[in-house]
Amino acid sequence: MAFHGTIRPGLIQLRVLDLDKTLDFYKNILGLDEVGRTSDGRVMLKCYDEFDHHSVVLRKTDKAGLDYVGFKVISAAELEAIKDKVTKFGYKVSEVAPNTEQPGFGKQYKFTLCTGHEFHIYSDVELASDHPQIKNPDIWNKPPRGMRAVRLDHFLLYGPGIEEAERFMKEVFDMYVPEICNTPDGKRLATWITGNNKPHDLAFVEYPKPNTIHHIGFYLQTWEDILHAADLIAVNHLKLDIGPTRHAITRGLTIYFWEPSGNRIETYCGGYTAYPDSPQRVWEASQLGRGLFYFSGEMIPSFLEIVT
Amino acid sequence: MAFHGTIRPGLIQLRVLDLDKTLDFYKNILGLDEVGRTSDGRVMLKCYDEFDHHSVVLRKTDKAGLDYVGFKVISAAELEAIKDKVTKFGYKVSEVAPNTEQPGFGKQYKFTLCTGHEFHIYSDVELASDHPQIKNPDIWNKPPRGMRAVRLDHFLLYGPGIEEAERFMKEVFDMYVPEICNTPDGKRLATWITGNNKPHDLAFVEYPKPNTIHHIGFYLQTWEDILHAADLIAVNHLKLDIGPTRHAITRGLTIYFWEPSGNRIETYCGGYTAYPDSPQRVWEASQLGRGLFYFSGEMIPSFLEIVT
Amino acid sequence: MAFHGTIRPGLIQLRVLDLDKTLDFYKNILGLDEVGRTSDGRVMLKCYDEFDHHSVVLRKTDKAGLDYVGFKVISAAELEAIKDKVTKFGYKVSEVAPNTEQPGFGKQYKFTLCTGHEFHIYSDVELASDHPQIKNPDIWNKPPRGMRAVRLDHFLLYGPGIEEAERFMKEVFDMYVPEICNTPDGKRLATWITGNNKPHDLAFVEYPKPNTIHHIGFYLQTWEDILHAADLIAVNHLKLDIGPTRHAITRGLTIYFWEPSGNRIETYCGGYTAYPDSPQRVWEASQLGRGLFYFSGEMIPSFLEIVT
Amino acid sequence: MAFHGTIRPGLIQLRVLDLDKTLDFYKNILGLDEVGRTSDGRVMLKCYDEFDHHSVVLRKTDKAGLDYVGFKVISAAELEAIKDKVTKFGYKVSEVAPNTEQPGFGKQYKFTLCTGHEFHIYSDVELASDHPQIKNPDIWNKPPRGMRAVRLDHFLLYGPGIEEAERFMKEVFDMYVPEICNTPDGKRLATWITGNNKPHDLAFVEYPKPNTIHHIGFYLQTWEDILHAADLIAVNHLKLDIGPTRHAITRGLTIYFWEPSGNRIETYCGGYTAYPDSPQRVWEASQLGRGLFYFSGEMIPSFLEIVT
Repeated sequence: MAFHGTIRPGLIQLRVLDLDKTLDFYKNILGLDEVGRTSDGRVMLKCYDEFDHHSVVLRKTDKAGLDYVGFKVISAAELEAIKDKVTKFGYKVSEVAPNTEQPGFGKQYKFTLCTGHEFHIYSDVELASDHPQIKNPDIWNKPPRGMRAVRLDHFLLYGPGIEEAERFMKEVFDMYVPEICNTPDGKRLATWITGNNKPHDLAFVEYPKPNTIHHIGFYLQTWEDILHAADLIAVNHLKLDIGPTRHAITRGLTIYFWEPSGNRIETYCGGYTAYPDSPQRVWEASQLGRGLFYFSGEMIPSFLEIVT
Repeated sequence: MAFHGTIRPGLIQLRVLDLDKTLDFYKNILGLDEVGRTSDGRVMLKCYDEFDHHSVVLRKTDKAGLDYVGFKVISAAELEAIKDKVTKFGYKVSEVAPNTEQPGFGKQYKFTLCTGHEFHIYSDVELASDHPQIKNPDIWNKPPRGMRAVRLDHFLLYGPGIEEAERFMKEVFDMYVPEICNTPDGKRLATWITGNNKPHDLAFVEYPKPNTIHHIGFYLQTWEDILHAADLIAVNHLKLDIGPTRHAITRGLTIYFWEPSGNRIETYCGGYTAYPDSPQRVWEASQLGRGLFYFSGEMIPSFLEIVT
Repeated sequence: MAFHGTIRPGLIQLRVLDLDKTLDFYKNILGLDEVGRTSDGRVMLKCYDEFDHHSVVLRKTDKAGLDYVGFKVISAAELEAIKDKVTKFGYKVSEVAPNTEQPGFGKQYKFTLCTGHEFHIYSDVELASDHPQIKNPDIWNKPPRGMRAVRLDHFLLYGPGIEEAERFMKEVFDMYVPEICNTPDGKRLATWITGNNKPHDLAFVEYPKPNTIHHIGFYLQTWEDILHAADLIAVNHLKLDIGPTRHAITRGLTIYFWEPSGNRIETYCGGYTAYPDSPQRVWEASQLGRGLFYFSGEMIPSFLEIVT
Repeated sequence: MAFHGTIRPGLIQLRVLDLDKTLDFYKNILGLDEVGRTSDGRVMLKCYDEFDHHSVVLRKTDKAGLDYVGFKVISAAELEAIKDKVTKFGYKVSEVAPNTEQPGFGKQYKFTLCTGHEFHIYSDVELASDHPQIKNPDIWNKPPRGMRAVRLDHFLLYGPGIEEAERFMKEVFDMYVPEICNTPDGKRLATWITGNNKPHDLAFVEYPKPNTIHHIGFYLQTWEDILHAADLIAVNHLKLDIGPTRHAITRGLTIYFWEPSGNRIETYCGGYTAYPDSPQRVWEASQLGRGLFYFSGEMIPSFLEIVT
């Protein structure tokens, strides 16, 4: 199949409280590498298996949560085409000041969804200096560290109007929707959306408060790595939320916890290989507990309610 | 990213010698389900996690090897468009008699590559009666059996003119090429090609004899499943070729062996998540031993030379 | 090191309610084999990797729970010696009617601990007809089924007077105590006891009601098998208690659930290799939550309170 | 079961060529910690999960191989008793100069088996300063490093007269013999010997040259860790011997390679839980290929022939 339009969620900027302590988590427990700092003190990080300059940015402020997420587009031409589609869809687009706000990144556009989230799109990114090898490559440059996060994988966003947001992702980003959960009266309660073979690049849950984030998901390689992540949660006295467990939705294996600033992190592996010709999986709201927590089959209210 | 054109390799017809014994392997050791038989005695099979009617067809004859491979296209309109691109590329296309030769499948076109391999393309396939669940789905209908093959994954084809074949896959099937291996004089020795996030949907090795196949790859979920496959090879006295080991190429974890008719089977898991914007990995022929057998770093000549 | 006295917990008789439904669980979900039935209708079962005639007996009655547990002694001579030590310790010993109550087993003695539990000891057991292979052995006779329970592993008993019970296990069964948990005033709250390299063959928790059992533990091989057990819990709609998680105590990886009659089952793997010269691990009662549920670090009251 | 006599193989002194390079392997690739150095320049190391002062000693000299192996005895009284049994068996015993040759160790006796190997016995060892935690213990002090070797596990010794050596281990060390391999004329070709629940603490192969060693085995936790060890072999360009594979003998999962001085190392996990009442497994010499290399079922001559 051919790749067009957006390739993946490749950038996220998070607000953190105690930068030193939180950075220590991202580097030494989650296992990311620090790429550098911006002139205004934000810290850029990347996972060991990512080629692009950086994927995670931490900004110190007084409230945890999300600044924005960014999606990489396959070419400069398609970036312009998608920009036009965003405008046509009805969202106002503006350009982000290049290379001052995002070292290593070329032209970026930004706009805000009905859910209140700021999205960026970009196509031009420098290769990271410590990118995976290309010539007769070893499997990594040095052994993965800490939780061995492979890459930024996905995020779950909470906000109002997710039916529109889902439609936006399909019509403008040309993504598809492997799984949905509907209320008994047929309204969308949650939607899992992807542009590739991962079961989700992002997901939305309907929620009255705009611009909130449930979690940021990082990809691990195996169920053994989920265990290792759990051991690191225990040894480092991080606050566990849920897991290790399996989502029936996506089939992913997972553990959720909070980093020191209070942003919820998921470390995740597995999940089926999604294809756009597979029938859409549909969950009834009454079965969402089983969909999220497959082993107990019961909803954990705090899981749905705590967001940043 | 958006999906266009071909979605995946979804069909393969293999020639087998002793149908009963070979079928017992595919069903009870590899773990596929028998879907039914054609009027001319061929056996249709599928993996437990595949939605389409069937993916593997066994035809009894007096020589093992490949009859053809098939690629699914995302829509009937794109099927016609790709058919035209094939013709324009220079390969003669003809239609396969529908539903007599391939129960469950709609219109199919076929053509022969320069490498001598017969390729099919199709877009219309019935859902298998035992397809994965869609409504509040469990992770499987019944526990995976035997080697727990998840899906038909890829194949490695040997034949002459793979530079043309690679160009065909890019120009006509709109795929990309995550890894290549070149001879010292810059000729393509091997090429790994994909249309999605898997490191390869198929691969070619330059070889004088046309229309030969090195192996058919089935996807397993984990390194533990590779071990279980290895145990089943041992207990069932199948002939091991190579493994368990890792390919540095694709990073896949793998074991190779021969099914009772002499077709080489790979059961495979892992591998990096491929993206079309990642730099192409390039292997020198002198490093191919390390690329294929990462732990020993040494080429095993029989691995390259034995084909069917 | 040399082996004397008791070898392992090798026998357990459980009371079940719905024999057919519960037996279906033990056979087709937990993965035990039915060895046969006694003249009074009890069902004998064994795990695939056990040599002895059977290890688990199910007796249909109107209340779930434990009838007795049995420990194998290495020789007939030592059986008599231990019988004498039991008597000397102060517990009344009687002989169990041979081969009528326990087909395949020779002489058995029984006695009741201060905690109210009936213990059996025996040395003479027939080899199971389907025992693991001995001559040029394969790793199993047929692929492990269901949760792939390797062996009966341990049990956790609740009752009064566990300091005496611990002393009994040390003095009479010649076992040692890798881990203990004490109340702030120095009373034993829980004790983990073994006679070999497993972190525990059995454990006791101090509890006012005599002769109650918290769970029966079956050994699985890997954390992947714990996941598979969890998937089977979900697909079969068994009632999950806790897990998958890790105990810091024993370091075991585990999942707890209830079989259809309401007996709590643990499927367990990992754990350190215990040695009698290692220092005893000591847990404060305030840290027991972390000792039991390492990832959350918090006690789950129902885990301690629900027994049969 | 009760523990008497020898507890485990707890000490090994190896001869190495390039001390710095070899030490780098043991510390940074295999994952041991350096405990200190003796006055004559030998380096003491231990695995992260060992309580005793050290377990591995490297001595720089001009020929790789084994200086001696040591077995820990459970008490000073039993040490003297075993010393007397050794003498009675017919081997001359002498005392090793305490604490000069082996810092952290108390009284040691040494003697030479008929196979030419020097054995030590000792009972009194200081706790390592970095021993596993005892009070409300975490599962490790810091995340295991490199290949994550848990402990010194076993060794395979080559030499003449292994029937006598086997008898010595049974009669003097009170061990038992879970598996043997005999030649067609009933002579012992190989023997696997243990004093606990591990399938082997050591093994012997009949060989004309005395005092040679085939490999030193270190315990890893999982098949995933075997894979990680294999990846480290590849990335660090160590010389692979065999694996990853399974031994049918012991059922262990394994990979063999050479450290920089040429001593063969095995990293190993799994294996059945051995019990002294299980029937002895017996291998015919003609099946030894399958016993050692279960997946291929074929002997690899170099595996048997290369020793140091």
